[in-house]
Order: sequence, then structure tokens, then C-alpha cells
Amino acid sequence: MGKVYNMTKNNMTSLFITSTGPGAEDLITPRAIRAINASSDLVAYGLYLDLLGSVCAGKTRHELPLGKEIERARLALDLAASGKVTALLSSGDIGIYAMATLVFELLDRQLQGKENHPEWLDVEIEVIPGISAMQAGASAVGAMLGHDFCTISLSDLLTPWETIQKRVHSAGEGDFVVSFYNPVSKKRDWQLDQACQILRGYRPAETPVLVGRQLSRDDEQIVITTLAEMTPEFVKEQVDMFTLVSVGNSESRCIYNHALQKEWVYTPRGYRKKL
Amino acid sequence: MGKVYNMTKNNMTSLFITSTGPGAEDLITPRAIRAINASSDLVAYGLYLDLLGSVCAGKTRHELPLGKEIERARLALDLAASGKVTALLSSGDIGIYAMATLVFELLDRQLQGKENHPEWLDVEIEVIPGISAMQAGASAVGAMLGHDFCTISLSDLLTPWETIQKRVHSAGEGDFVVSFYNPVSKKRDWQLDQACQILRGYRPAETPVLVGRQLSRDDEQIVITTLAEMTPEFVKEQVDMFTLVSVGNSESRCIYNHALQKEWVYTPRGYRKKL
Repeated sequence: MGKVYNMTKNNMTSLFITSTGPGAEDLITPRAIRAINASSDLVAYGLYLDLLGSVCAGKTRHELPLGKEIERARLALDLAASGKVTALLSSGDIGIYAMATLVFELLDRQLQGKENHPEWLDVEIEVIPGISAMQAGASAVGAMLGHDFCTISLSDLLTPWETIQKRVHSAGEGDFVVSFYNPVSKKRDWQLDQACQILRGYRPAETPVLVGRQLSRDDEQIVITTLAEMTPEFVKEQVDMFTLVSVGNSESRCIYNHALQKEWVYTPRGYRKKL
Repeated sequence: MGKVYNMTKNNMTSLFITSTGPGAEDLITPRAIRAINASSDLVAYGLYLDLLGSVCAGKTRHELPLGKEIERARLALDLAASGKVTALLSSGDIGIYAMATLVFELLDRQLQGKENHPEWLDVEIEVIPGISAMQAGASAVGAMLGHDFCTISLSDLLTPWETIQKRVHSAGEGDFVVSFYNPVSKKRDWQLDQACQILRGYRPAETPVLVGRQLSRDDEQIVITTLAEMTPEFVKEQVDMFTLVSVGNSESRCIYNHALQKEWVYTPRGYRKKL
């Protein structure tokens, strides 16, 4: 139980590709904490290290800004290959729209002879999963991911918009609950509106939508709205790069418990006939 | 930070809908542990409680077998409403194909006057997210969920097969990485084969497939294979109800590091042009 025990072996160069969860300290797994404790060097976007707080004390921090993802992956492999036990960190699940895949893409290039870093191939790698934003959002409002769902990144920096658009159509046709990652950025402001327009062609205007900002963090803001209300003005006001947007499927329901003044969103699984 | 602190308020009836993660003890979040510690009564499928071990000591255990999901949800609401701090537990993420959505469906029925349990509406509910099987699987083999993905339950007990089939087609058209939950059961043995046949119409036969059984548990078994190899015979031998099957998208790659005799699967995000 707990693969981080690997790190106690001798003469091993180790890289822990580590998820730190959505933000709250008590949603970080003990395995991630142990990986950080075992590392001398941490590689991350600086904000993530700040969120982690005292567990990073005494570690050599390598903070590279947003946009320097490739450099972060290379540095993590270089540090580990040089004998430093290293943790590469992302918030959420590092395997979901985050740094893990880049490390393996670099290893793949080395295996194909496109890089000149044979030492990377001696690095023992462990990937530590974590709770992703869609899960923090779905649980904060109830059970929005209760049935089949998908995730789509709306960033067209790495994926052509035509591909993204096609995926949104497929998500609509398949009636999946859809979680949009990277819904907007400073330079991208129209993709979420287009995606919502597409989904309105497949599911009711009153379909519940979760707009969750800084999920599980101290400044968490959650708005429950509908697909109809996802206008360009609303998006401009409520959605930034720290926001997750999840759109229910055609059966998702928003309910309000007056007794506790609490609104919930859930996606049923089909027990209705049996209840 | 850490909503479980709610439980210290007075005169409150509390239900913690709690995820216990894929199985490994060090992948359970501290928030989940705190919720269990705060509860006098635990409601779960017995096996999950056994996996949790000593944290359940001294609690009143309400173990209901598989198939008794509705009864478990009702019992959890009843216990909490009677003043007992209660944790309803599922492995993985309790919001993903698990118990959370049933609780909200019951509350919804009460709000609609279809149940006669007004006391349920006084129960403070907190849902605690967890790491789901797809994440345990993807991280065990590398970064399989590195780009847009979806999940599909192959159980046609609650969802008509026509709906499931349509979703598999949509997943194929959208080129999502697909994680199949509930791939087979004692009574269902043909759905996974049909689903793989559908996906073979959309992506290459050599697309990597992860077959992960008892992920992150002591008896974890992981097989990396291809879509072509997912024959009925293979499924019969390798897949049971404790198995997750994830199928890569058309760009997912399986690589082999001879130096460490380690096979990895990753789904690239599109950095290739920049590397």
C-alpha cells in the first residue's frame, strides 16, 4: 500500500509526478504529502506551492510561470536524472490537463532519438493521482457527475478549434454531463459562449450549469445557473481562468431545500423506476 | 478550509456522503477520514468498510449488500434525521456512479411530496469527493487521461442499452479517451465486447487499452493491451466487476522504457509542435 515507499531504495533517481488536489489542504492525499516530504526539489507554477504552505518548507523551489510547461517538465526530468529526488506538482489531478502527459511525451521523444537525454530513461517515475476540479465542483453542489460525463478543454492553443467544436457536438449528441476546463483566458473569451450555444441545440435551456471559481479554496465562489443564462455578459463577469464550468445532461436537476436554504444539483442514474 | 468543521455545530443532524478513493489507504483524503471519525454510524457495502480498516473501529456498521443501493440511501437519511451523525461511504468518488446521486433523488422526491419523510429536509449534507478508478488507472500507467475524456457505465440495469450504445458512438466520434465503468457483471457479459466493436469503427486497432483490476489495492492487476486484443475470450478471462477498462483516443501512445522495463501509456495534449 502506498507506492512512495519506492523512494527508500538506494541509488535510484526518482520523479514524483504529484497531484495536489483542487486547493483545500484536507483534499490532498497522504501519498502526495509523502512524495513532497521525500523530495529535495519541487517544480511547479509558484501559486500551487503557495497553496501548499508549510509542507514545502525547506525544499528547493523551482517556480516557472504559466506558459513554461515544457520547461517545467524538462527541468523535472533533469533534476531527477541528476540524482535529486524531485516532485513535479500540479493542482487538481496532474494527469488531467496538466503536467504528467508532457513528461511522458518527452520520454517518448528520447526513446525515438529526438532528444539527447539518455539519462532521463533511468528516472523512476511515480504518478500520484488527485481530485480534479470537476469533482470538487460536483460534490460542492451535490452529485452533478452522477451519470456518464465528459471533460473538454476549451483552450485552442494546443488543439484546433474545429476539433474542440466537434467534441462539444459529440458531448451534446451523447447527452454527457460536460465539464469545461480552461473555459476562458486573458486572450480567449469567445469559446465558452460558442460551446454553450452548441449544447443548447441538444439539451433544454433550463439545464443546470455550475460555475465554480477557486473550488475548495478560501475564496471559492459557486454560482448555479442554467444553460440559457450563459450569455457573453454573464461569462465576462463570472468566468476566468480559475473557473470550472459544468453543464448538466438533459436529466440533471436543480432542487431547492427551503428548510436549510440550500440548492443542490444532481444527475440521476436511472433509479427512478425503482424508487 | 475543510467543511467537516460544520459538524461541530450544535443540534444539527449531519450526513457525510463520503468518498474513500480507489482502495489504497494513502489515497483517502484527510477530509474523508475526519468525516468518518465524526460519525457514529457508517452505511456502506461491507467490503468497503473492510478496506478502510481501523478507522471504522467502534462505529455502528450498517452493511447492505450490492443491489441494495436505494435501501442504503434511505437508511443513511433516516439515521442522520434521527440525530445520529452518519457517513454514507462508497469507494472511488461517491459522486461518480455511486451513492451520492441517490440521496439527492430521494430528497427531490420528498420535495415533490412523493415521500413522507419531512425530517430528511433537516439533514445537513456534505459530499466529500475522492479519487475515482479512472484516475487510479490512468496514473498507474502514466497519463492516459491527458486530453479530453469521458466515462460510460456499461450497466444496462438502469440505463437502456440503446442509450449506452449511442454514447459509445458519440465517444468514438468525439475521439474522447473512454473509461468504461461496470464493464461486466455476473449476469452481463456482452456489453464490453460490443462497446469495443463500436470504438474499433472510430480509432485504430492498435489503440492502447488499460484493463485495471482492484486498482491501488494489494491485489491490483494491470494489463496494457490494444483495442484489437479486446476479444470476448480476453474479456472473459481478464475483466470482472472490480475492473476498469480505459480505451485511449486516436493519439494515445504506449511506450516501453527498456532501461527500467517499464511500459507507459499517455495521451498527448498537443505540445508536439512546440517540443
